[in-house]
Amino acid sequence: MFKEINVPNRTIMTPGPVEANPVVLRAMSTGTLGQFDPAFTSLMQEIKEMLRIAFNAPNNECLAVDGTSRSGLEAALFAMIEPGDKVLIPAYGRFAYLLAEIVERAGGDIVLMERDWTGTFEQAEIIERIKAEQPKIVAMVHGETANGQCQQLEEVGAYCQANGIYLVVDCVATFGGMDIKQDEWGIDIAIAGTQKCLSVPSGMSLVSISHRAKAFIESRFQKELGLGADQRNERFIQSNYLDLSQLMVYWSQNPINHHTEATNMIYGLHTGLRLFVQEEGMEKVFQRHQLNNNALIAGIEAMGLGIYGDRETAMPTVIPVMIPDGIEPNKVRDILLEEFSVEIAGSFGDLNKVIWRIGNMGYSSRKQNVLHVLGALEATLLYLGADIQAGKAVQAALKVYR
Amino acid sequence: MFKEINVPNRTIMTPGPVEANPVVLRAMSTGTLGQFDPAFTSLMQEIKEMLRIAFNAPNNECLAVDGTSRSGLEAALFAMIEPGDKVLIPAYGRFAYLLAEIVERAGGDIVLMERDWTGTFEQAEIIERIKAEQPKIVAMVHGETANGQCQQLEEVGAYCQANGIYLVVDCVATFGGMDIKQDEWGIDIAIAGTQKCLSVPSGMSLVSISHRAKAFIESRFQKELGLGADQRNERFIQSNYLDLSQLMVYWSQNPINHHTEATNMIYGLHTGLRLFVQEEGMEKVFQRHQLNNNALIAGIEAMGLGIYGDRETAMPTVIPVMIPDGIEPNKVRDILLEEFSVEIAGSFGDLNKVIWRIGNMGYSSRKQNVLHVLGALEATLLYLGADIQAGKAVQAALKVYR
Repeated sequence: MFKEINVPNRTIMTPGPVEANPVVLRAMSTGTLGQFDPAFTSLMQEIKEMLRIAFNAPNNECLAVDGTSRSGLEAALFAMIEPGDKVLIPAYGRFAYLLAEIVERAGGDIVLMERDWTGTFEQAEIIERIKAEQPKIVAMVHGETANGQCQQLEEVGAYCQANGIYLVVDCVATFGGMDIKQDEWGIDIAIAGTQKCLSVPSGMSLVSISHRAKAFIESRFQKELGLGADQRNERFIQSNYLDLSQLMVYWSQNPINHHTEATNMIYGLHTGLRLFVQEEGMEKVFQRHQLNNNALIAGIEAMGLGIYGDRETAMPTVIPVMIPDGIEPNKVRDILLEEFSVEIAGSFGDLNKVIWRIGNMGYSSRKQNVLHVLGALEATLLYLGADIQAGKAVQAALKVYR
Repeated sequence: MFKEINVPNRTIMTPGPVEANPVVLRAMSTGTLGQFDPAFTSLMQEIKEMLRIAFNAPNNECLAVDGTSRSGLEAALFAMIEPGDKVLIPAYGRFAYLLAEIVERAGGDIVLMERDWTGTFEQAEIIERIKAEQPKIVAMVHGETANGQCQQLEEVGAYCQANGIYLVVDCVATFGGMDIKQDEWGIDIAIAGTQKCLSVPSGMSLVSISHRAKAFIESRFQKELGLGADQRNERFIQSNYLDLSQLMVYWSQNPINHHTEATNMIYGLHTGLRLFVQEEGMEKVFQRHQLNNNALIAGIEAMGLGIYGDRETAMPTVIPVMIPDGIEPNKVRDILLEEFSVEIAGSFGDLNKVIWRIGNMGYSSRKQNVLHVLGALEATLLYLGADIQAGKAVQAALKVYR
């Protein structure tokens, strides 16, 4: 016997997926429309407009890919890379390696520029390496969810723009929680997701494409077979599903059939974007994330726990908390979930034994959650006999708020 | 100013996306869970079980891809094809050409076996061609949405199973409306979607993988970079996002991180599958589709309209209606939408001028919709001065029901 969906209520303080905004969830249960119904295509056009606002790129080609965040990363890299193209990837955390993984699958020539995961790069270092390597593309991560670090980009972007190099940036962990100034920073393709600071469930990826990247991608357009008059292209993109040259047409005012748009996810995305760019407003959303970040940091430090990595380059949406000596990391997360219905995250690779990650994203980034997770974490650590300060964490956070 | 989602109520009688079941929509607005929350992963395991029931393949590896139907087609073909592999594609409609498009992108060697779109192949013809070509893979469509034709498969499957050839079948337009006997028919990978007879919104693809196909795909497994100890593979699949070797692990009891599962789509899929395999029950669902198909056909014929293609090999989920002489196809669809809030579909390529397609799928496949679409189509054709029988269509359908 399979039972109807009836899941526990959770306080989700991970770096995604976070709690979806209830207004978004309600919108997602709206009745389905046909994908070419004018009442539906007008929503897609509005999403394009809102994405341009959200990415601070008023003239870009914007669209959503029907897949999770990494589908947008793959779509962007597959569109830009032809076999043998050199791609420079500065890596200061786990998700740079995902970019490398995708570049490998695209047949690109990978140049990895690595450092430890405690901080980011000086922009001058990256520019030096670009000069030395002369890549076609620089692909990197804006905010690294694995360690909470955030890379400055504007000088790198300016250099790329001036020198005919394409800059592709993973903004998944920062979009919606920090301002992404795509035009100002010189990013050719910025990619984000829905399940983090936008508080829309996972399942769509957001892609914003500069004028020159668009022109390049269009040069690879191949109309798919079975739709009448053929239009073949020797330089076709290696995926049909994630073919940005087709997706840009599909999202235009004169679409050619491609996939069947994920109608109800579109309802959710439209709603999440509207709440972000208009109802609460971007500036206030960023202030809220910053305030809650400050309260979380104050609470964690008051407890006597360390925070991992360079604080100068930390982002406000993920807090990497050092695991105290003698404490079993997964035990803490299990008790938090089982007793407090609170979810926090581990990390990736070797860092999984060093830090927990507390997310501060979207609808989950609110006072009640901050105070609850601090109280629950303190109680759990005390229960396990950790050597921490009792009774300080929530007080410190309250002081930030009041 | 962007306004909240407030869309018209439609009667959707296209071959997808169709009206989502309200029970599914309600489930989709359930609060988000973390992707590794045991309360969530248990739902994924139940989905696997329900997919095995739905595909009549109790020992298969089943999973959902976070993308629309064609993402599953691409995942299956990318997993099975290595560059230069020969793929035979018998084509009797538009979606065989989509398979060819994907095979081309995978670097496969395409052998197209074409016929006109009025019927299907004799299985013996296909087997002869397989013998002559010796392909590694046969890829074909079970039910072709463009023309409403449905291909018999069991002899082709038996031959493939006996001769070490993999059979990959697009069941998108039939799954949930007709029984798919995957094991009995010898299908190695069957692919379906959510937005047709399952009445779940678009956005996921369902994939069911035989034991031998699973073993082949596993031989290409490459663990992605950034997750600790590397596991490289020279024969890696060309997509990371749609890598079935990784997705099978992600859907296992011991998952390795991949994408962030589309939680709320999973709620919808779980609910749609439960309604299909358990609440209404597969046999009754198929009977309902057959009954409503009979009523639609009776009504269309009573109106004096023709039905396209071989009726012997027609499927019950899409009815290709001949457009009467002198009637502008799009004009009829526009009036249906604007005045009656009824959506029917055109077709693809040259067939777009020859037929309309009336879908009979999932939650949309119900008596009230059948009677409404027949009445609305008759009224619209009369309004435009078409030479049809007045007052007969709904009566003929009523006779089928009573």
